[in-house]
Amino acid sequence: MTELTVTTDRREQMIDVTSQVRQAVVESGVGSGLAFCYVPHTTAGITINENADPDVQRDILYKLNKDIPQRDDYHHAEGNSDAHIKASLMGSSVQVLIENSGLVLGRWQGIYFCEFDGPRRRRLIVKAFPLG
Amino acid sequence: MTELTVTTDRREQMIDVTSQVRQAVVESGVGSGLAFCYVPHTTAGITINENADPDVQRDILYKLNKDIPQRDDYHHAEGNSDAHIKASLMGSSVQVLIENSGLVLGRWQGIYFCEFDGPRRRRLIVKAFPLG
Amino acid sequence: MTELTVTTDRREQMIDVTSQVRQAVVESGVGSGLAFCYVPHTTAGITINENADPDVQRDILYKLNKDIPQRDDYHHAEGNSDAHIKASLMGSSVQVLIENSGLVLGRWQGIYFCEFDGPRRRRLIVKAFPLG
Repeated sequence: MTELTVTTDRREQMIDVTSQVRQAVVESGVGSGLAFCYVPHTTAGITINENADPDVQRDILYKLNKDIPQRDDYHHAEGNSDAHIKASLMGSSVQVLIENSGLVLGRWQGIYFCEFDGPRRRRLIVKAFPLG
Repeated sequence: MTELTVTTDRREQMIDVTSQVRQAVVESGVGSGLAFCYVPHTTAGITINENADPDVQRDILYKLNKDIPQRDDYHHAEGNSDAHIKASLMGSSVQVLIENSGLVLGRWQGIYFCEFDGPRRRRLIVKAFPLG
Repeated sequence: MTELTVTTDRREQMIDVTSQVRQAVVESGVGSGLAFCYVPHTTAGITINENADPDVQRDILYKLNKDIPQRDDYHHAEGNSDAHIKASLMGSSVQVLIENSGLVLGRWQGIYFCEFDGPRRRRLIVKAFPLG
């Protein structure tokens, strides 16, 4: 089990962690199996999306913020209910196949840590399971 | 494979099933691996979110209901299309690492069964895979 | 690892791939374990939902399109940011238990490939892991 550190510098931010995950898989020595990426936070999530044009990440965050603004008729006193909602919508984990010690991602796919209540110093757990 | 029963008493409800999942993992005898939690329903989901302030769960349900009300221009005659949509947004499964026979959850994380068309008697499947 | 082909004929479409996934599991020879279904695209996703009434799929797509229309104040020049957002909301993978060489799905559940920027020829990766 590898614990990566992700440092965010804005309230909402999508950070490409693909190379960090790839390195953790290589260091695990697992040649074939499943890479499990887990976010142990409740105001951040993780997703797989396009890694070519940064505007895609901008547009995802723009739309989430437009439809789920920070201010609403929320009861939670910390003022970050929107971040909790966005975290559940994106999800707490992604899984990617490992073949030949590499990640089986599509041509345009990257793995993105999704910060919704930053800036903060975050953790990302990566576990490579040897399977098959 | 353990099949847990979750009894809901409202139409929309988030129920903390963390201790039930933890117990299933302990009873499985798996010391290290992956806990797979699966909802075999189409109008309920499962997510991981904050377990400290119940207002977080209230706010998640409030926002889902505000944006995805039961009544809309739906064709499905059962009147629960909103519940099907919410189920897919939350997802049908979550995965959590197992270490030392315990769940590797973040400090504020709990596992929540998400009822969107209750009250009902629901099932939650938990499988602990011994890995690594 | 099996790579299935999914051919879509509309921009937005939910295609039932349950029988294809089931066949891939049978052909894998895995009697007990986990079926991992992965979409290697960034404008398509995958979800589990009702397989009885096609209106449920219609209603899911209707609501996603109503709330996330193709046109908005997006920066991504390809004009498909809505598809990228929908892909992350549905997710890039689903997992289903395998028992007795069959999928452990609920009574009304099917696995749906979610096209959000078709029509296209798409890929769906299925890997059956022998476990437990």
